[in-house]
Amino acid sequence: MVTAPLGLTMGEPAGIGGDIALMTWAGRQGRPVPPFVMLDDPQRLAALAERLGLKVPMRVVAEGELASVASLFADALPVLPVPLSHPVQLGQPDPANGAAVIASIDRAVDLSRRGLLAGVVTNPIQKSALYATGFRWPGHTEYLAHLAGLPDDGTVMLLEGGGLRVVLATIHLALKDVAAHLTADAILHVARVTDAALRRDFGIASPRLAVAALNPHAGEGGAMGREEMEIIAPAVAALQAEGINAKGPFPADTLFHAGARAAYDVVVCMYHDQGLIPLKTLDFDQGVNITLGLPFVRTSPDHGTALSLAGTGKASPTSLIAALHAARSIASRRLGLSCD
Amino acid sequence: MVTAPLGLTMGEPAGIGGDIALMTWAGRQGRPVPPFVMLDDPQRLAALAERLGLKVPMRVVAEGELASVASLFADALPVLPVPLSHPVQLGQPDPANGAAVIASIDRAVDLSRRGLLAGVVTNPIQKSALYATGFRWPGHTEYLAHLAGLPDDGTVMLLEGGGLRVVLATIHLALKDVAAHLTADAILHVARVTDAALRRDFGIASPRLAVAALNPHAGEGGAMGREEMEIIAPAVAALQAEGINAKGPFPADTLFHAGARAAYDVVVCMYHDQGLIPLKTLDFDQGVNITLGLPFVRTSPDHGTALSLAGTGKASPTSLIAALHAARSIASRRLGLSCD
Repeated sequence: MVTAPLGLTMGEPAGIGGDIALMTWAGRQGRPVPPFVMLDDPQRLAALAERLGLKVPMRVVAEGELASVASLFADALPVLPVPLSHPVQLGQPDPANGAAVIASIDRAVDLSRRGLLAGVVTNPIQKSALYATGFRWPGHTEYLAHLAGLPDDGTVMLLEGGGLRVVLATIHLALKDVAAHLTADAILHVARVTDAALRRDFGIASPRLAVAALNPHAGEGGAMGREEMEIIAPAVAALQAEGINAKGPFPADTLFHAGARAAYDVVVCMYHDQGLIPLKTLDFDQGVNITLGLPFVRTSPDHGTALSLAGTGKASPTSLIAALHAARSIASRRLGLSCD
Repeated sequence: MVTAPLGLTMGEPAGIGGDIALMTWAGRQGRPVPPFVMLDDPQRLAALAERLGLKVPMRVVAEGELASVASLFADALPVLPVPLSHPVQLGQPDPANGAAVIASIDRAVDLSRRGLLAGVVTNPIQKSALYATGFRWPGHTEYLAHLAGLPDDGTVMLLEGGGLRVVLATIHLALKDVAAHLTADAILHVARVTDAALRRDFGIASPRLAVAALNPHAGEGGAMGREEMEIIAPAVAALQAEGINAKGPFPADTLFHAGARAAYDVVVCMYHDQGLIPLKTLDFDQGVNITLGLPFVRTSPDHGTALSLAGTGKASPTSLIAALHAARSIASRRLGLSCD
């Protein structure tokens, strides 16, 4: 039995993070979720619950009480207080609250690394509201890598949904910069981390990796790009030489239909939209973002702060619920507690 | 009543074009198709039918007999002879047959322009086997534009399948070259041709065009690319000023799920895989390639020559069947004969 709960961070308090967290707890009987504790400001959550018309009794817990969260979760939403310094204006991120946003993440990571949390589930952040705190990372994931003492590109972002898993060899780049940033080393790193994580965190004994091409028709023998011949195929050969079951490069438009999906466990994609387009085409609401290669468990819903929906009750908690389940599943496998 | 039949070109005779044509005719009672005449070599088709174990009686027709194809199609496969100069080695394209491949296309276009064919459905070609004939176009579609006296980029490729239509602002480019080739003029041209074709050829009275972004998250305000601000958004504004119902740019990964698809009739995509990935993810087998902006009707299956499957009976005629139906539908609308 895992007694440590998951920790759910505040994220941008002007966004939908609070909404979907409260909706998840309030709907727990219809859609069960693993127990979690919020690292958030109890007062702002109470005001938000009232605005949303949700009855959400809260129980403020201290660090030493985390082991009891699993048992009290049925009756109250557990909150480990991370106080905000300024009142929240929904839809309008306030840099003055940036320090609390960061503190929520830092605390969740620290507690996870000490075993007091089973893993970190992060609500979306608004980077622009964090710059005043000195936040200088391209995104949430890179900040978590930094907290773990890894380089910015030390982790791998895996997205899962609609029966598809994708990992990305390049991520937040303008399309024009993708080819210049694509290296065999990046593909090797992503594939190695992914292969290890599928074994350890997903219970797949012999992971099958499909590697996507960069160019249309996989470059058509060099007529439409040479990255397949010069970068991707050599990387696939190197992976095979290490005993990793990688195949490719395959033309990306042939890789994602149902028949193709049956032949692999994950696709190594060369750029953001190559992976995100098929994933969100197949399943727009339930996608989960899972960070591989961290010394603690971290998942996240795969959407943003949706500022215009904050406080309206129109946000969907579906992706957050999927992220909570994914984090619990990985945490159980890491602890050797999974039954399958 | 349209009496002119569709013309189906030979395509690369070492590929699957003959296979899928014969399978389509042989299966016409289970999967009805509009009448078509093949522009092909009757002897090579007879040998292929025997190899495939298909009973396909053929009726050689002359140009003056095309109006009778509709009535004789039930009992025999009509063939307008385009003789090959060399025996076909399945799977091995022979440049010596390139002239016949081109002649089949030229003849079908000529007959269509003269009203003796209702439209041209093209089997896939193998460009490398055509260079000896002087073929110098990037692809089939550009060659057809040339025959129509249009520039290489004078037409627009529309792909349809799985309840989705996409058109492409750039097509056969290496990914690294896409951004440099993307212009507002190209987007305007593609959108205008598409808007007109949806009205004339698809019977959509008020077409709704969604325009995709180029960069992840639509560039995130310039942080990941400026093409949205500098090229795509101004093009959308210009289209709106002309009265075309275009919206965007939208992040590409949010555009293709079922809910999003209900809000538009077509997506203007910025590059090949951006459109082809969702299309083939949703429907791998039934995609159709429709050329917009030509003075004659032209459709095509959306697959290639599949050389390794030629003569095996393993190729699927599904996309060709869809292409025949699409061509007939467009031809009927252009002639004002559609009932809907």
